[in-house]
Amino acid sequence: MRLVETVEELQALADAERAAGRRVALVPTMGALHAGHLSLVEQGRRRADRVWLSIFVNPAQFDDPGDLDGYPRSWESDLVACRAAGVDLVFAPQAAEMYPPDSQTWVEVEELSQPLCGAARPGHFRGVTSIVAKLLLAAKPHVAVFGEKDFQQLAVIRRMVRDLGFDVEILGAATVREADGLALSSRNLRLSPEARRQALCVVRALDAAEQALAAGECRSAVLLHLVRNEIGKAPLARIDYAELRCPESLSPAPESLDCPTLLAVAVFMESPSPSDEAVRLIDNRVLRIPEGLP
Amino acid sequence: MRLVETVEELQALADAERAAGRRVALVPTMGALHAGHLSLVEQGRRRADRVWLSIFVNPAQFDDPGDLDGYPRSWESDLVACRAAGVDLVFAPQAAEMYPPDSQTWVEVEELSQPLCGAARPGHFRGVTSIVAKLLLAAKPHVAVFGEKDFQQLAVIRRMVRDLGFDVEILGAATVREADGLALSSRNLRLSPEARRQALCVVRALDAAEQALAAGECRSAVLLHLVRNEIGKAPLARIDYAELRCPESLSPAPESLDCPTLLAVAVFMESPSPSDEAVRLIDNRVLRIPEGLP
Repeated sequence: MRLVETVEELQALADAERAAGRRVALVPTMGALHAGHLSLVEQGRRRADRVWLSIFVNPAQFDDPGDLDGYPRSWESDLVACRAAGVDLVFAPQAAEMYPPDSQTWVEVEELSQPLCGAARPGHFRGVTSIVAKLLLAAKPHVAVFGEKDFQQLAVIRRMVRDLGFDVEILGAATVREADGLALSSRNLRLSPEARRQALCVVRALDAAEQALAAGECRSAVLLHLVRNEIGKAPLARIDYAELRCPESLSPAPESLDCPTLLAVAVFMESPSPSDEAVRLIDNRVLRIPEGLP
Repeated sequence: MRLVETVEELQALADAERAAGRRVALVPTMGALHAGHLSLVEQGRRRADRVWLSIFVNPAQFDDPGDLDGYPRSWESDLVACRAAGVDLVFAPQAAEMYPPDSQTWVEVEELSQPLCGAARPGHFRGVTSIVAKLLLAAKPHVAVFGEKDFQQLAVIRRMVRDLGFDVEILGAATVREADGLALSSRNLRLSPEARRQALCVVRALDAAEQALAAGECRSAVLLHLVRNEIGKAPLARIDYAELRCPESLSPAPESLDCPTLLAVAVFMESPSPSDEAVRLIDNRVLRIPEGLP
């Protein structure tokens, strides 16, 4: 497994792979790898001859410096996991490699970056789209793989790639979950045992809405009430947002659902110890209207 | 000479050229080709095996709809000129090809886009950097050639390419001038004969500052006074800006010049007939401090 730290070296390797007629899949990560990331590697492997994984904790996508400082880092075990998963190359640049001195260029997807996590974390998606653009220009992959847990991120990246005309296929991969249903996230490492237990309220909330819809309840307000009610049962959980949106445009869903609709939730899980920072978790589900409903 | 209208076809051709080990130079233009553009083709030819020229009047870089409508277009003679100059491929997309419906992604170079033409034409450089990013992603050239007449544009594009890590060399080419010194510009076609005659005030202004500096006058205010004075001698000329700036950062020059300094000028040339719109011309010179000055 090759370790690369500079854009120049990566671009030369990308050109060599292309010259040899081999396809490259890129899996961009911020490290702290878990089974969710490794499923992205697996998806990439199916579509390409080489799987490259980048590890870069992107400062530009953190609106909160405390969140950046506290973001979990596990370099050695990440490399072990990459080797075990058959990753061919790890790209792990220093910050100055991706943001040269006096860096001032940004890539922004305007409308899709506004709601949901964009509203909660100003500048977050501008940081995401800028670093993903740089990674795509550095690795020149044929396909890049992103998890569907970050639904809005995937939508924003797809739009950027379409609008600017990047010659790359963007592949979304299903969310990987713990046995009890909690979506895998590097941030889960920061949950206290009690907060970890209560974090299941998010999955229960998604389930509650899905089950109500299956039983014929199409009213957005009622479905969101159910969601808030489930999350409210967990004393350590504080809702950041819970919204129903069109999966493509991310515009608000109608009062009565009549087509597949994104249910997106973000909660802060407080720690029982007040000195610890809250951990922000997100999850989502695309709700399908059951057949036979009007 | 091949004519291409879609990004997809251009990317396939780019891949084929690269697979065959051939280098491609891209010359992005808005058409209305003149000898200045053809000198960019010539520069490209020296650096590459293939020269591709794009013709796209980019709506996003016009802050003034009247300016966009009135921008000269000469499709047939452009193609004749390209053939004569040995251009291998012309990329001429429709607007919807470069800006798909509901397009919302922008590339922006923040600080360098602010002064000079950026201050005079809000949003102009965001339009320039976005379309150039799309053209670079579409043509995947080894080198792209831009004229130094648009000095700030060249600086902004160089910064974008550096910051995002585009794997392309940006080549600046010296301004081509008429026999009397007027910088070639597609907009010159819109000058009345009298305005064309008076437009020489711009070159005289650059000359005046250069000669004064050569004679030991380093004070910015005095040099700019000379520039404004020369332009003021032309009754049809109205100064948009006349500024001394650092050539790299575009930050304002010090009170007394002590290193190479950009003198950048934009003027509106009015028409003797009040019904015609004024024509905006730009020109610039990098002033060198004469040896032996303190």
